[in-house]
Amino acid sequence: MSNSKVGIWLIGARGSIATTVMVGATAIRQGLMEAGGMVTATEAFVDLPLTAIADLEFGGCDIRPRTLLESARQLQEESGCFGQGIIDRTVDALCEIDGRISMGTTINCGATIEDLASGSCRNDRTLLEDIEKIRQHIQQFKVDRGLDMVVVVNLASTEPLLELAECHQRLALFLNVIDRNEKALVRASTLYAYAAIREGCPYINFTPSNAALIPALVTLAQDSGVPVMGNDGKTGETLVKSALAPMFASRNLEILSWEGFNILGNLDGKVLNDPDNCASKLKVKDQVLEKILGYAPHSKVHINYVPSLADQKTAWDFIHFKGFCGAKMTLQFTWQGYDSLLAAPLVLDLARLAVLAKGRGESGLMPQLASFFKAPLGVAEYRHAAQFEMLGKYVDKIRSSPNESDRAVG
Amino acid sequence: MSNSKVGIWLIGARGSIATTVMVGATAIRQGLMEAGGMVTATEAFVDLPLTAIADLEFGGCDIRPRTLLESARQLQEESGCFGQGIIDRTVDALCEIDGRISMGTTINCGATIEDLASGSCRNDRTLLEDIEKIRQHIQQFKVDRGLDMVVVVNLASTEPLLELAECHQRLALFLNVIDRNEKALVRASTLYAYAAIREGCPYINFTPSNAALIPALVTLAQDSGVPVMGNDGKTGETLVKSALAPMFASRNLEILSWEGFNILGNLDGKVLNDPDNCASKLKVKDQVLEKILGYAPHSKVHINYVPSLADQKTAWDFIHFKGFCGAKMTLQFTWQGYDSLLAAPLVLDLARLAVLAKGRGESGLMPQLASFFKAPLGVAEYRHAAQFEMLGKYVDKIRSSPNESDRAVG
Amino acid sequence: MSNSKVGIWLIGARGSIATTVMVGATAIRQGLMEAGGMVTATEAFVDLPLTAIADLEFGGCDIRPRTLLESARQLQEESGCFGQGIIDRTVDALCEIDGRISMGTTINCGATIEDLASGSCRNDRTLLEDIEKIRQHIQQFKVDRGLDMVVVVNLASTEPLLELAECHQRLALFLNVIDRNEKALVRASTLYAYAAIREGCPYINFTPSNAALIPALVTLAQDSGVPVMGNDGKTGETLVKSALAPMFASRNLEILSWEGFNILGNLDGKVLNDPDNCASKLKVKDQVLEKILGYAPHSKVHINYVPSLADQKTAWDFIHFKGFCGAKMTLQFTWQGYDSLLAAPLVLDLARLAVLAKGRGESGLMPQLASFFKAPLGVAEYRHAAQFEMLGKYVDKIRSSPNESDRAVG
Amino acid sequence: MSNSKVGIWLIGARGSIATTVMVGATAIRQGLMEAGGMVTATEAFVDLPLTAIADLEFGGCDIRPRTLLESARQLQEESGCFGQGIIDRTVDALCEIDGRISMGTTINCGATIEDLASGSCRNDRTLLEDIEKIRQHIQQFKVDRGLDMVVVVNLASTEPLLELAECHQRLALFLNVIDRNEKALVRASTLYAYAAIREGCPYINFTPSNAALIPALVTLAQDSGVPVMGNDGKTGETLVKSALAPMFASRNLEILSWEGFNILGNLDGKVLNDPDNCASKLKVKDQVLEKILGYAPHSKVHINYVPSLADQKTAWDFIHFKGFCGAKMTLQFTWQGYDSLLAAPLVLDLARLAVLAKGRGESGLMPQLASFFKAPLGVAEYRHAAQFEMLGKYVDKIRSSPNESDRAVG
Repeated sequence: MSNSKVGIWLIGARGSIATTVMVGATAIRQGLMEAGGMVTATEAFVDLPLTAIADLEFGGCDIRPRTLLESARQLQEESGCFGQGIIDRTVDALCEIDGRISMGTTINCGATIEDLASGSCRNDRTLLEDIEKIRQHIQQFKVDRGLDMVVVVNLASTEPLLELAECHQRLALFLNVIDRNEKALVRASTLYAYAAIREGCPYINFTPSNAALIPALVTLAQDSGVPVMGNDGKTGETLVKSALAPMFASRNLEILSWEGFNILGNLDGKVLNDPDNCASKLKVKDQVLEKILGYAPHSKVHINYVPSLADQKTAWDFIHFKGFCGAKMTLQFTWQGYDSLLAAPLVLDLARLAVLAKGRGESGLMPQLASFFKAPLGVAEYRHAAQFEMLGKYVDKIRSSPNESDRAVG
Repeated sequence: MSNSKVGIWLIGARGSIATTVMVGATAIRQGLMEAGGMVTATEAFVDLPLTAIADLEFGGCDIRPRTLLESARQLQEESGCFGQGIIDRTVDALCEIDGRISMGTTINCGATIEDLASGSCRNDRTLLEDIEKIRQHIQQFKVDRGLDMVVVVNLASTEPLLELAECHQRLALFLNVIDRNEKALVRASTLYAYAAIREGCPYINFTPSNAALIPALVTLAQDSGVPVMGNDGKTGETLVKSALAPMFASRNLEILSWEGFNILGNLDGKVLNDPDNCASKLKVKDQVLEKILGYAPHSKVHINYVPSLADQKTAWDFIHFKGFCGAKMTLQFTWQGYDSLLAAPLVLDLARLAVLAKGRGESGLMPQLASFFKAPLGVAEYRHAAQFEMLGKYVDKIRSSPNESDRAVG
Repeated sequence: MSNSKVGIWLIGARGSIATTVMVGATAIRQGLMEAGGMVTATEAFVDLPLTAIADLEFGGCDIRPRTLLESARQLQEESGCFGQGIIDRTVDALCEIDGRISMGTTINCGATIEDLASGSCRNDRTLLEDIEKIRQHIQQFKVDRGLDMVVVVNLASTEPLLELAECHQRLALFLNVIDRNEKALVRASTLYAYAAIREGCPYINFTPSNAALIPALVTLAQDSGVPVMGNDGKTGETLVKSALAPMFASRNLEILSWEGFNILGNLDGKVLNDPDNCASKLKVKDQVLEKILGYAPHSKVHINYVPSLADQKTAWDFIHFKGFCGAKMTLQFTWQGYDSLLAAPLVLDLARLAVLAKGRGESGLMPQLASFFKAPLGVAEYRHAAQFEMLGKYVDKIRSSPNESDRAVG
Repeated sequence: MSNSKVGIWLIGARGSIATTVMVGATAIRQGLMEAGGMVTATEAFVDLPLTAIADLEFGGCDIRPRTLLESARQLQEESGCFGQGIIDRTVDALCEIDGRISMGTTINCGATIEDLASGSCRNDRTLLEDIEKIRQHIQQFKVDRGLDMVVVVNLASTEPLLELAECHQRLALFLNVIDRNEKALVRASTLYAYAAIREGCPYINFTPSNAALIPALVTLAQDSGVPVMGNDGKTGETLVKSALAPMFASRNLEILSWEGFNILGNLDGKVLNDPDNCASKLKVKDQVLEKILGYAPHSKVHINYVPSLADQKTAWDFIHFKGFCGAKMTLQFTWQGYDSLLAAPLVLDLARLAVLAKGRGESGLMPQLASFFKAPLGVAEYRHAAQFEMLGKYVDKIRSSPNESDRAVG
């Protein structure tokens, strides 16, 4: 393992996923639990120069008026997802981290997200002022904790879809947008991504918000030696879909219809109940089948807010397919998982792998991380097993060129 | 496509799968339907020298006292699985094939299978006499239909497990078993496999019966230039399992329990209701998880006979897994498919690919066909996507060495 | 059984349900099948003076440009729901009935329904002219077939919700609507219901269209000695819901959420894909839980059009409930049924029971038929078992007062 | 509410259900939670002279070498079924009750149960000695806690089926069995039931063990003025079955097959993994359908031990049914509930209702409690709604004859 000290700066730091990331990392550090669910904790990653969980520091920003501890207790009360006593034993760590979570921005995040924001969340700054604030917070975090590197991960609620124009495609034009303070052309996530990349921080867009890693910013990352990747962590229904759809293709069983119904009761569910915000989500989920099958069957993904479920996301998928002699058959599945517990270990994985990539001098998109995302940027491969093999080959390559991976981090 | 004329000689020729193979192939030939469900009908296999469906002839043996047409009509009546009018339009072909289906043997197949046999099914011959009879039938089929090659496919009901001894491991010892007429040491499927290989016919064991491709016979095939493969066509629950289990492994989600409940109402279900015969089936199904995961979770596969379902096999799988922070989550799936319609196209695929292999001078086990089997002989890879990639690489290799594949067939 | 000859005049006579009603009744008459699925075919109804299936005649109206036989063949081809050969053996009867199906009206049925209509479907008549046309068609049917009584059953596609005003509450005001030709205040179903009642025909509203049995028309029926009942045949998800919800109530298990997802591919599904038409449907489905539980849990019913399913409606319901110590538990169910085959026998039941009621001198709403409807008019009881007991008590009462039930029909 | 003090003496007092009963009753008493899941806590039972939860005292016996607190903590750890902090706040009460739990007997309970027993569990006493011991424990409990009445509830693990002979039918013969110490003719539950009835204690057999309320003991109860009832609390799959099967019957939809698969991981599951003990369970579950439908469809109930589920019992039921035109359709349901949390409130209900019955001078079987049991003794009605109505009518009768119900308890 690598001994450098790494900071993870989380956007949406008091949300369910971020809270779970911190509770989990603290519990692992204290030996309260194993790292189940973390891909980089498997044997395949042994001996790679990955940052130890104990060497991770947490910071970030949020917009809601509550403490990290309140978030943790609410998660536990509503979903009972943590083992007994874990919250109690991580109270000190959570309170300490809480002190360094700054106020975020909700610019163009839509009414549903703005309604969640604390009164002290200001949207009256210019774009440049906002960006500077974010950069200062990241710098502060780095200095305060004596960090060799900071990775920024976007875990904020899904923003409404941003219609991409020419100014989002080319870096020069995008810089003009900032200079001219054309607020309508960005969303909060755009500012975070820009600030992170300018700070040299690898940036992970774990959300479907397409405003974050716009082409202009991917170019900036590429040119600045900063690895970035997104979009939208693949944790539940889409994960299963990307494992099952190739099976049908491999057997020449034509998919007639694939209907997916997702119900969940956490904040994510509440925000996705807003059609504007949901559109972003559905866009990344909807393309999976066509990418895998080569044709677009009748298919729709539905997301509904069911408060009593809290964090326990449930999905029912109905798959209608046609076999020999034209016979119609069905596969149905029901997935019941804790949304945050499925996502959190991947956040740790992605941060560790982004640090590794930076250390190896990579920049721009990280296709080796495709299996972690619903809509992996720059990757045509959507079959889960094939995506996972891309990660395996990447790891093999590192193993076979150890010198390169021994380079200093930061 | 290759222009040679190929015969498929089916053991259990009037069973549901065999009947569907013949109805389907006839319907495809007549242009009544497309080849959906056939792997070799996909674009990936275009331009390979595969035998055209129109160039396939069917023959075989069975032990039950009924006609092929009766089987077809019963399937349609009970399961309604064929499109309208298909049976009516294939009557002539079915009746013609029926005339060349000979009487089979049930030696050591257990009471449940013996009870199904026609009165004219004799078990009083010596092993050598039985083998000679089978070889004569195959030869006759070849001569009568003017065939370049015959592939033998075992579609008979699952036999009780054969306990493998030294005599099944080494060819010389096995030849003694036949000479000495030691009936207790073989099952019907052993005789068919031996006869087929001696006739130079590629042999596919589509059933779980382990008595067919015993090590001694694999050696014989290897030495005789005959390609063979088994065991047990992967058509339903196990197919899904082999697609899903790697997904859990790829995410470090520990499987706590995987319980599978299969219900079906066809003859296969009836025979598997006999614990002796079922043991063979469960053996091939039970090992899949451990091979994929590297550990053996609590797991049991149950098979129950539910007559009203007829050919419409239904499986419910309950998967209990552990994620981050030790949280338990579940995935359940229900698979509802026509058993015979899922199997039949694979039989055509396997026959075509076996002919291809023979034409290329291959002999012994065909690991490239692993994705077709629940327990692929000689293959350690049980992950479906990885198995399917083995087939893809095999096809790529043929494409890049066309000369070899142009060799004459037979 | 009663020997009088009864006509069933179906609105939407070439739709899936109506077609199935006629195919089924013909097949029963010919002895091709039993009357499974018909409530009045059970032992509990033996000896009641019900019209024999053989004494039923069919007529009706429709707006679509196709034949009854085409409907029947399409149903069979897409859904394979009829037994083999049934359609072929009922061709003559279907063609004969087809000749007496008249052109209907689509007034205010919404764009989706109007798009389905044949070019010869005219909406330029006055309300009075439309009503007269309908009455003439019913009279003609009665005369032509020498019928003692005609029952009118609405099986047309769901209309958009009609907002009820004072003029729909009181008969006198409603008559003014017709006189003044205020088309905006009625829908097609209103005209059919009015015409039927004026003709002395019992009227069954098997659809959710609330414009049919408006209070003014129930009053008219009550005063005219005509039995009527609705709304919306209870055939699938709601049937199961009305059986399961009382179970939870009986155990003091609080329903936290009840989400229902319905997918179907027939014309009903297509029409319900129009939000206007769907609103009517959801209204009758949505009230069931509150009526049974006494409180309104978080609950939403979703209906989605999935063409490949054709008539095979599939519903997944997710029920989240709270037990002792506040623990959350779940019940999920998946219902897979042929929409038309579930509805058709109930149409025959309702017609027979309406004839019985008319013969007994009943008029106005028929609460004894509550168990057949999603939203039984004038009935507060929504628990299925209790509703079914209402029918049982009604039958018992008839048995104990035989004289009354012996009265001549018509 | 009645003010008398009532004791509940639980057989299997440290098992999951008993533990949950005590944790729950204590938590309700302390105002930590409401009485959700308790039938007698609903409005329908208001004003009935039922014993207040606060006036219930707990005692009992068990055979396992562990404390009640250990049981409670294990339940919480494995299943997380209790709300946060409940166990901690009931520690004192649990420890106090623990002190009065005596050692039980395992006579003829089979090897699986005997293996669970503490070393100090002796089986060398005569039947009479065992009975005397039990009576003394009950008497002691009554005296120590100053109780007006004691109800005995059997919550012990399922015993192997007892083949009923003449000696179990007639009281006189059964008394001889005891006198002659014919141990082979009884099981532990027989002794408990006999002792309870002789002590004048209402006796509830919440288990499927048929050795408890044998006909001879029902006679004894009847003659002694002691109300008794059983067998086997109806908590999960069978509850749903008894609500759904009448729905199919009410629609003349023939059940073709009803397969039920239960998986669970608590001690109940472990004991039921022993075929001898499971036979008792399946017997009470298997008869439900035939009693409701009037015919016996193909049906089998399977119970399997899946340790990771702990107390979270999961059942998948597959229902295949036939409708109009012979079409086959399906209903599947998955039930996921905490076994002990579903059972525990019913134990409190049954005890309260048994006290009420005793106070009203009832004796022998209590048919009004049919809805609580899988196989209600002496009751032919198996439809859940109809059974629940029996309870409603009983309550109505009490309300309309208040004097009778005011009689002193004890």
